Amino acid sequence: MGSEMDPLRGCVAQLSRFPGIGERTATRLVYWLLRQPPEVSAQIGEALCRLPEQVRRCVRCFDLSKGELCARCSDSRRDGSVICVVERPQDIQAVENSGGFRGLYHVLDGAISPLDGIGPEQLRVRELLARLESEEVQEVLVATDPDVEGDATALYLARILKPIGIRITRLAHGIAVGTELEYADRSSVARALENRREM
Amino acid sequence: MGSEMDPLRGCVAQLSRFPGIGERTATRLVYWLLRQPPEVSAQIGEALCRLPEQVRRCVRCFDLSKGELCARCSDSRRDGSVICVVERPQDIQAVENSGGFRGLYHVLDGAISPLDGIGPEQLRVRELLARLESEEVQEVLVATDPDVEGDATALYLARILKPIGIRITRLAHGIAVGTELEYADRSSVARALENRREM
Repeated sequence: MGSEMDPLRGCVAQLSRFPGIGERTATRLVYWLLRQPPEVSAQIGEALCRLPEQVRRCVRCFDLSKGELCARCSDSRRDGSVICVVERPQDIQAVENSGGFRGLYHVLDGAISPLDGIGPEQLRVRELLARLESEEVQEVLVATDPDVEGDATALYLARILKPIGIRITRLAHGIAVGTELEYADRSSVARALENRREM
Repeated sequence: MGSEMDPLRGCVAQLSRFPGIGERTATRLVYWLLRQPPEVSAQIGEALCRLPEQVRRCVRCFDLSKGELCARCSDSRRDGSVICVVERPQDIQAVENSGGFRGLYHVLDGAISPLDGIGPEQLRVRELLARLESEEVQEVLVATDPDVEGDATALYLARILKPIGIRITRLAHGIAVGTELEYADRSSVARALENRREM
C-alpha cells in the first residue's frame, strides 16, 4: 500500500492505544469500518470526541458527572455524614444497587499498588482529607476491593483517619449470599472465618 | 448513574458496534478513556472521523486509495494485461510482497457464500466484467482464499470468463515453502497431490 495508506495506518495506530487491542485487532477493526457506510466511522468517532467534554468528574466526589457537581453531591436528601470510599466510579453503581446506602461517595481513582508505582499521592486521598475538614463527616466507609491492593488502601486510610477521630468502617467480606458453603471459594471462606460474628 | 450518564452509555453503544467488541469490553474501554487525558479520546475519535474521507476506494480496482485512482492503477509501468482478483484489499499486500507480480488488481470485496447470502451480485464481479471489456486484459489470475467460499468464487469466475476467451489462472495451493511434509496440514497435502506437476 506504500505511503498512500498512511491515514489507514494512523487509524490503526490510534485504535491500538486501547488496552487489550493490538495492532492485528486494530487492523481488523479498521478494515471492517472501511466496508461500512462512511457514517459508521463518523458516528463512533464523534462519540469518542465528545466523551471528555460530556462526561466530566464531580469536583467533590470525583464520580463521573455531566456538570461541576454530580447529581448525588447536589442532592440535599443524601446523608452527608457518611462517605463511602471506592476505587472506581463504576463501583458506586454496585453500592447504589444494593439500596442500603444513602450517603455520599469519594472515588480514589485506584488503589495502593507499590509494584505499579501507585502510592497514596497518586490517589485522591488529599481530596478526601480536604473533604473531611470542610464537611460534617462522621463515618468513612471503605469499599475498596477485597484484594491485596484494596486491603492495603483500606489499611492506609484507617491509619491516617483514626487519629482525626472519624469512625472508619469497611464493607464486610465473606461468603456471598446465595453461595453454598461447599462451592464458596477458599479466600471468601477464609475471610468469613476471620470476620465471624457473635450471635 | 441514572440518565446523567447517557453520553457514557452512548459511547459504549458506539464502540459495541465493532465486531468482537461486546458491551462489557466497550464499557472497559470507555472507563479507560475517562482515566486518560482528554486529548486521547479526541485523537482516537478524530482518526475514526477522518477515515472515510481519507481512505477511499480506487474507482478501477477497488483497492484502498487516497484519490480517485490508486497508485498502482495510475502507474503506467504496471502490466495492464494481467488482473489479479482478490477477496479483500489487504490480500493485495501479500501478493505484492512476493515480488512476483507486476500486473493490476481487482478487489471483489468478499467471496461467494450462499449461507451468508453473498452471491456474485454482492461482489464486484460486474465491475470486473466491465474492465475486461474496456481494458486490454489477456489473463485473469484468481487469488481467492483456498477455502470453500474462495473455491466457489474461483469456479464461478472461470465459468463466466472462459467463454469470453480470456486466460484464467489461479494461484497454486500446496505445501507451504519451508514446511516439512511431516508437519504439513491435511488439506495442504491433499491440494499438493491434486495439483501435482510433471517433472
